[in-house]
Amino acid sequence: MVAGVYQDQGMNKAPRIELLNTGNELLLGSVRDSHLSWFGRELFPLGLRVTRQSTVPDGVEIRETLLDAFGRCDVLLVTGGLGPTTDDLTREMVSEILGLRLHLHPETLDRIKERCRRRGFEFQQRMERQAMVPSTAIVLPNDHGTAPGLHIPPVGGVSWESPRIFLLPGPPRELEPMARNHVLPILKQLYGGKDGSECRIYRVAGMGESLVEARLGLALSERGDLEVGYCARPNEVDFRLIGPKAVLDEVEPLVIQSLGSHLVTAGEESMEAVVVRLLRETSMTLSVAESCTGGMIADHMTNVPGASEAFLEGFVTYSNASKSDLLGVPTELLREHGAVSEPVVRSMAEGALAKSGATRALATSGIAGPGGGSTEKPVGLVWFALARKGAETTSWSSNLTLERIAFKRAATRSALDALRKDLLTLKTS
Amino acid sequence: MVAGVYQDQGMNKAPRIELLNTGNELLLGSVRDSHLSWFGRELFPLGLRVTRQSTVPDGVEIRETLLDAFGRCDVLLVTGGLGPTTDDLTREMVSEILGLRLHLHPETLDRIKERCRRRGFEFQQRMERQAMVPSTAIVLPNDHGTAPGLHIPPVGGVSWESPRIFLLPGPPRELEPMARNHVLPILKQLYGGKDGSECRIYRVAGMGESLVEARLGLALSERGDLEVGYCARPNEVDFRLIGPKAVLDEVEPLVIQSLGSHLVTAGEESMEAVVVRLLRETSMTLSVAESCTGGMIADHMTNVPGASEAFLEGFVTYSNASKSDLLGVPTELLREHGAVSEPVVRSMAEGALAKSGATRALATSGIAGPGGGSTEKPVGLVWFALARKGAETTSWSSNLTLERIAFKRAATRSALDALRKDLLTLKTS
Repeated sequence: MVAGVYQDQGMNKAPRIELLNTGNELLLGSVRDSHLSWFGRELFPLGLRVTRQSTVPDGVEIRETLLDAFGRCDVLLVTGGLGPTTDDLTREMVSEILGLRLHLHPETLDRIKERCRRRGFEFQQRMERQAMVPSTAIVLPNDHGTAPGLHIPPVGGVSWESPRIFLLPGPPRELEPMARNHVLPILKQLYGGKDGSECRIYRVAGMGESLVEARLGLALSERGDLEVGYCARPNEVDFRLIGPKAVLDEVEPLVIQSLGSHLVTAGEESMEAVVVRLLRETSMTLSVAESCTGGMIADHMTNVPGASEAFLEGFVTYSNASKSDLLGVPTELLREHGAVSEPVVRSMAEGALAKSGATRALATSGIAGPGGGSTEKPVGLVWFALARKGAETTSWSSNLTLERIAFKRAATRSALDALRKDLLTLKTS
Repeated sequence: MVAGVYQDQGMNKAPRIELLNTGNELLLGSVRDSHLSWFGRELFPLGLRVTRQSTVPDGVEIRETLLDAFGRCDVLLVTGGLGPTTDDLTREMVSEILGLRLHLHPETLDRIKERCRRRGFEFQQRMERQAMVPSTAIVLPNDHGTAPGLHIPPVGGVSWESPRIFLLPGPPRELEPMARNHVLPILKQLYGGKDGSECRIYRVAGMGESLVEARLGLALSERGDLEVGYCARPNEVDFRLIGPKAVLDEVEPLVIQSLGSHLVTAGEESMEAVVVRLLRETSMTLSVAESCTGGMIADHMTNVPGASEAFLEGFVTYSNASKSDLLGVPTELLREHGAVSEPVVRSMAEGALAKSGATRALATSGIAGPGGGSTEKPVGLVWFALARKGAETTSWSSNLTLERIAFKRAATRSALDALRKDLLTLKTS
């Protein structure tokens, strides 16, 4: 049945794929959606895109949005509302609109009971709802939760046809493996590979987006074979090019030349991944001594698989005592200049270098706020230092007047960017 | 003008507030939206909610979505597409649909030029577009970027009226202060305070959502004066109650009693905020020794304002050498049992306790993957220890078969939850 359904769907134009997220927690702001970015990233390599996304409350309001989307898209991905509780109505609403009857799927019921048993949860009668399946639907097993996904191929009459619908569970840990195993392969088979475009993102620092456009973007978009985009962030612009690999390769030297030292990273590589790669390429090792960043530099570094080869250790020295005890910062320095000062941050970096045996050490000390500022040292002030084995320590300061977590992020970025530039010099010298 | 526009808008029913995000970067997944959760959280205390949210690509596709929303909502918040580049078309599209002419706003142009001067960026002719304003719009100054926001009060003819429209910049750092200063006060004046509901979220661990519903949720939703909701997460359920404060206070003892030790936190307080609060209430101090969590525990702890009073220091001991050098873990232990083992993690925690002088120390050691696993010690295995001054060290292990960053998060949560339970005992004993 499956193959038959798919083969008559070959299309020349790009399919319209819509994502519909349900859940009051998303609209109340207690949970931040991750499904759109996940599907966006996963579909792109197949030459596909999410063309529109919506979020609606739990319950009956999904009805109106479903009907809107039906007339507009070829594929509808619906997330959430498959749970066992009374506000979970996605399955019932979709079946009602399509005129499909729900029947109990015994295999799914067994699976749910088995899962409860394995996890020591009591089976609740209401869980049986999760084993109800619309008559034409294909069940997508859930390896990480109770609610199965459902694939409902297009149904329709003389004058209309419904989109291909996938009902998927809300929790990312359940949705992502299910979509990877059961949704993306179908979309790939039906629509994939028509495009073959790649997406390259160049992160640019110290240059506004209008200058990036004037210097580079306009000329590239006039070629007609590239899609050009911009996304501005604090002190940073993402410059995005989408097109065939050959074209991207052709223009890349021009991009690199035009952006010069403003180019932070090319491609999807994160700042920390670039730093780990450069550390490995230059056979350098890193330790960090963090005060105001409070472990975030270490945390970001260790998000990169294989970081352990280059990242030796981190000190989170939040208190003055820990700066002295762990890093050997002289107490007179702390007394005379205060913890947020150039002499102290240099001493922290050099202490971390000596203690760890690494060849590079980064240190941060600043005032994250909201409290703790003064006229002389306002909230937002950060001192940074980079100690280098066999070379002199460098230090610099910034005023990052941002909310506490954004402050930590900006400081982490600034520290890693300085290390990146240092390692680049090393690599090219 | 402003007051006059607002006063005739008093309404008895809740306004429909829609959020429309524009930006290819959101649909491609290179950036994750934060506006919905921000507005959701900010509007709730005013008794307001986002009733629907959509994401559309940059450019002309916004037109169709705008027209859809016009017939459906009272307030339309549009984010993005106000920049200086050619894909920024929000201002032009909205003006065209409403039949409003754009004129140059000299003050805004001066502001943009001044901003360029101050930041050492060259003024680009194309930035002038950002100073174009629809005839009936009120300019909302942007203190953190060039593009001003625009507030367009309802316009219309005999048979229709447009919603109140706010055009806001995409970058959160520009949007959030602008919305806080210029959008929320207007919405509060027009519609706020009609409801007075509060939202309480109870985080529940070790109990499935259907059991939470059976034991508690059904009875509460049958009262008729509470809105009950559930959000499932890995090993956790958010149980959400919305209603008048008096009703929430009335049922809270029942909630606490029914959930018992499964209740992790009540209210919006994060796990780390609970831990910081409990540390302060019990006059305890913490240090951490992190291997597989790589600094994330320290990072989360230091996200809480005032953490410095209770969090002394952190050791990120990624290498074996650093476990010995910094924490005094005997090299024989490492050789005999390996870094990911109960004896080593206990020694790490006890080392951190002794070195730091704290009264509590958490330690983690595990295999985050994707590499580094074996049959005996698979990827996902984590050992935890909690050392306590004057009491015995406890240790436990988990198998967290999750992707690298989710693994670190789950391990961080598990470690903090153990500390939370320990501090609770202390508090109630």
